[in-house]
Amino acid sequence: MLGQRAAVVGRFWKHRRHFNRLASTGSEYSREEHEQSYYKYAYIAGAAAVGMLGVQQFMRTAKLDHAKDEKDVKKLENLPMYAQEEVKKHGKDADRIWVTYKDGVYDVTDFISMHPGGDKILLAAGAAVDPFWALYSQHKTAEVLEILEGYRIGRLDVKDVPKAEPDAFSNDPERHPALLVRNAKPFNAESPPSLLTDHFYTPNELFFVRNHLPVPDIKTEDHRLTIETLNGKTIDLSVDELKKKYKSYTIGSVIQCAGNRRADMNQYKKVQGLMWEGTAISNAEWTGVRLRDILADAGIDVFDEKIKHVHFEGCDVDPTGTPYGASIPMEKARGNEVIVAYHMNGVDIPRDHGAPLRVIVPGNVGARQVKWLRKIIVSEKESDSHWQQKDYRAFSPAVNIGDELKWDTVPSIQEYPVQCAICTPAPNTKVDRDDGTVDISGYAWSGGGRGIIRIEISVDGGETWSSCEMEQEEKQDKEHMYAWTLFRTEVKIPPGVKEFNIIAKAVDRSYNTQPETASGIWNVRGLIHNAWHRVPIIVKD
Amino acid sequence: MLGQRAAVVGRFWKHRRHFNRLASTGSEYSREEHEQSYYKYAYIAGAAAVGMLGVQQFMRTAKLDHAKDEKDVKKLENLPMYAQEEVKKHGKDADRIWVTYKDGVYDVTDFISMHPGGDKILLAAGAAVDPFWALYSQHKTAEVLEILEGYRIGRLDVKDVPKAEPDAFSNDPERHPALLVRNAKPFNAESPPSLLTDHFYTPNELFFVRNHLPVPDIKTEDHRLTIETLNGKTIDLSVDELKKKYKSYTIGSVIQCAGNRRADMNQYKKVQGLMWEGTAISNAEWTGVRLRDILADAGIDVFDEKIKHVHFEGCDVDPTGTPYGASIPMEKARGNEVIVAYHMNGVDIPRDHGAPLRVIVPGNVGARQVKWLRKIIVSEKESDSHWQQKDYRAFSPAVNIGDELKWDTVPSIQEYPVQCAICTPAPNTKVDRDDGTVDISGYAWSGGGRGIIRIEISVDGGETWSSCEMEQEEKQDKEHMYAWTLFRTEVKIPPGVKEFNIIAKAVDRSYNTQPETASGIWNVRGLIHNAWHRVPIIVKD
Repeated sequence: MLGQRAAVVGRFWKHRRHFNRLASTGSEYSREEHEQSYYKYAYIAGAAAVGMLGVQQFMRTAKLDHAKDEKDVKKLENLPMYAQEEVKKHGKDADRIWVTYKDGVYDVTDFISMHPGGDKILLAAGAAVDPFWALYSQHKTAEVLEILEGYRIGRLDVKDVPKAEPDAFSNDPERHPALLVRNAKPFNAESPPSLLTDHFYTPNELFFVRNHLPVPDIKTEDHRLTIETLNGKTIDLSVDELKKKYKSYTIGSVIQCAGNRRADMNQYKKVQGLMWEGTAISNAEWTGVRLRDILADAGIDVFDEKIKHVHFEGCDVDPTGTPYGASIPMEKARGNEVIVAYHMNGVDIPRDHGAPLRVIVPGNVGARQVKWLRKIIVSEKESDSHWQQKDYRAFSPAVNIGDELKWDTVPSIQEYPVQCAICTPAPNTKVDRDDGTVDISGYAWSGGGRGIIRIEISVDGGETWSSCEMEQEEKQDKEHMYAWTLFRTEVKIPPGVKEFNIIAKAVDRSYNTQPETASGIWNVRGLIHNAWHRVPIIVKD
Repeated sequence: MLGQRAAVVGRFWKHRRHFNRLASTGSEYSREEHEQSYYKYAYIAGAAAVGMLGVQQFMRTAKLDHAKDEKDVKKLENLPMYAQEEVKKHGKDADRIWVTYKDGVYDVTDFISMHPGGDKILLAAGAAVDPFWALYSQHKTAEVLEILEGYRIGRLDVKDVPKAEPDAFSNDPERHPALLVRNAKPFNAESPPSLLTDHFYTPNELFFVRNHLPVPDIKTEDHRLTIETLNGKTIDLSVDELKKKYKSYTIGSVIQCAGNRRADMNQYKKVQGLMWEGTAISNAEWTGVRLRDILADAGIDVFDEKIKHVHFEGCDVDPTGTPYGASIPMEKARGNEVIVAYHMNGVDIPRDHGAPLRVIVPGNVGARQVKWLRKIIVSEKESDSHWQQKDYRAFSPAVNIGDELKWDTVPSIQEYPVQCAICTPAPNTKVDRDDGTVDISGYAWSGGGRGIIRIEISVDGGETWSSCEMEQEEKQDKEHMYAWTLFRTEVKIPPGVKEFNIIAKAVDRSYNTQPETASGIWNVRGLIHNAWHRVPIIVKD
């Protein structure tokens, strides 16, 4: 599969501007090497969701990395056999919590507080984790199984062993092979950086994908959007009704995963989560209707001071039937820019991106821009969803892996700080000294509509800087800039060095800037990494 | 005067919490030493305003620092004598621009492009600079005169030499002796850091002062506020009418000078401007009426898309009669938080802070919060004022001192990025190792109402961090936090060191953070310095 992808990337690569000036082959290999290494850590991906993993355990187990394959994982033998009936007594309210996996019985009581996914682990208490792991395939690695086997207390009566689950992801859509897959099930993939800056609006098939669950398969004509008021009163809209009833608006807006550039933060100090490099971000033109028009039509006063938040529910559900959910403050929800979109770059939103309806919350983090939108609820409080309350919050660098995560002490991420990254050249690209210069492209963006006012490049560690030419959407002013800024520039190869770093950073309309390194922003979940982006370059004399 | 101030600071110091745990005397001395050194650079202060100085010239002249006193400055002799009539021919439209100072005639043509105050220098073209220098006393140093003498071409006919100007500042109000004066005329002074964190709302007499011109002396009963619509229609309000006609609101809001912490940036690399340390910031409760209520009453539709900006004019005028002026975007102006204030911490606004009326623009930089407010104008464009167009804009670090300043390439500062500084202990405080710990206090604040979500301290250069206890205004939520956050904590004295740095930094509601050093944010005017604040501490064993 990697070979296939590499071939396609190669084809695109030929269309890339300035191709001849860069020795790209080496760097492309190096990206694939990186990618392979991510699979090694993939079992800590999706910690946002239901899972069974603890990082303290990982730290303990990391030393045991001789166990490369599931069949090599040692299992304690000569332990008692238990019937499902007995396991069931050790449910979430019992003193000791048991789970089963295949024919194994495990007492995970001491593991619960270490579970990165929080107490969602209790959903499997007294029962099998198999249906959950069917959704979160990243669990099925030797390392994770090795952790689990540490808790084995017996084996399950053969009559109670669950049958192999059908693959919940088998109905996921086809994807473009140029996408850089960070996790297969659920599907999570970056846009190819070598192509990303060629398009101001990212083509739909190259738009990064961040799914938490299997992709719903919705017939547009059957879909209903429900709006629920404070009194619990609801109204329902078909997609056609929504299009006909309200005025349509089109807005260029970035979606960025809160974990974008996590791999970079992980190099500073180990973090938990999917190892995104720098292109878990894309930019599209979205067309839809204003959220506040829908709310008003449902009889909701958008200036009602009792309404503090607006919740969104997707059609993507976990094995317990819980849908993906998130919320945004009402003050944001009633703004001009928030829409319920049905078009992405002028066509129906593709399945991976939320067909038929997705809420677009320009200037906010991707996690709040709920896909496959089926319900809108106004409320006095934030969404109770796992993804609002127990994920997508960035802790202090004082909180380390293994510490108890006091989620209610940090606010949910909404607006994003200023971000900037180089897309080309790739890390460790080899350049010829005779070329004299290196061409650079990349993106910058900031939350809250704060437009980028400049982007600067340094090749001497930040001693001196030069400004870049910027490409921005003309319709958007610096106070309402939800689309990204692309940049291109060239830098002189510094004399007398065998390698050097290209550093890029940006400044937004409120003069927010980026930190130099992850030192002050490192957080256990590896969220919102926006330190100066550094790309090492090798000089061939 | 320093002695007198030191005595008063000493009195306050006694009331300071945790006094016994710090060896404060040394640090207080050290602050005074710093302060004296600022006077050396004071001639580059007030570059925001009318002035005659160029920093390239300064760099050239800095070597000549043997000339400590005005009378020691050498003047070229045996040059021609000119009558005022002749000088007048070299006005702003002439090929060569002349000015006079006392009995000297100077051709400053080649200096104009280097003038930090921009082309305001042309206001004196073909005439005397004396009336301008009477307002900007920082010019009257040996160093500045030495620069000027470099341009001498002759002397002025004795009959035309201007008489000594009366001191335009003689009617300025009395000030509290604890204020740390950075410039006497116009008056600019910081709050004493040792007292600042003792009060959540800074007492009026300790609130930092940033004046651009002499302080107007206004009888409240005679004052009129004029509101001008797009058509040029105006309405006038007395202060009493304003209080009676509109509902009053009270809001806790920080005012921070865009140059706060400039001295810190200057240590990274030389910048231009008043050498503020870290307390050109204070916090008060302001009471007044909503700007949008006044605008609506004047028949202005605050949602009129033609109106993009709201201008403010003060009663403080320069020698040409031009008032201090600034503007804010209409979108900000119509917000709940913007008020025309008449009370500061529950009493009439003192003269230094804008009596009788000042516009309060919570979340924005101090320069837009016009004092002695006399006029409000709605407009399609930004204020043309010098302070909006040719000052209070932060250039790229790629723009160096002496480069042409292309003001229209950078936006005016409005919202402020996240800021944080330690107030106690003072730099170079000596602590006893036996004490074990050092108590720390300081403030953090961010623009746009983005509340501070945490403040962290490091004593190992950023390797590890600890979080601080925070004091915030309970009425303000994290999305609308215009008052500051005070913090207190204690840190252990690291073992085995003779000195160490305390570092403080903050994170705001949008997860904006501060850069580690000035490297990426350095700018020629030394504006918006918000790098990690580092306070060196000396350990006595």
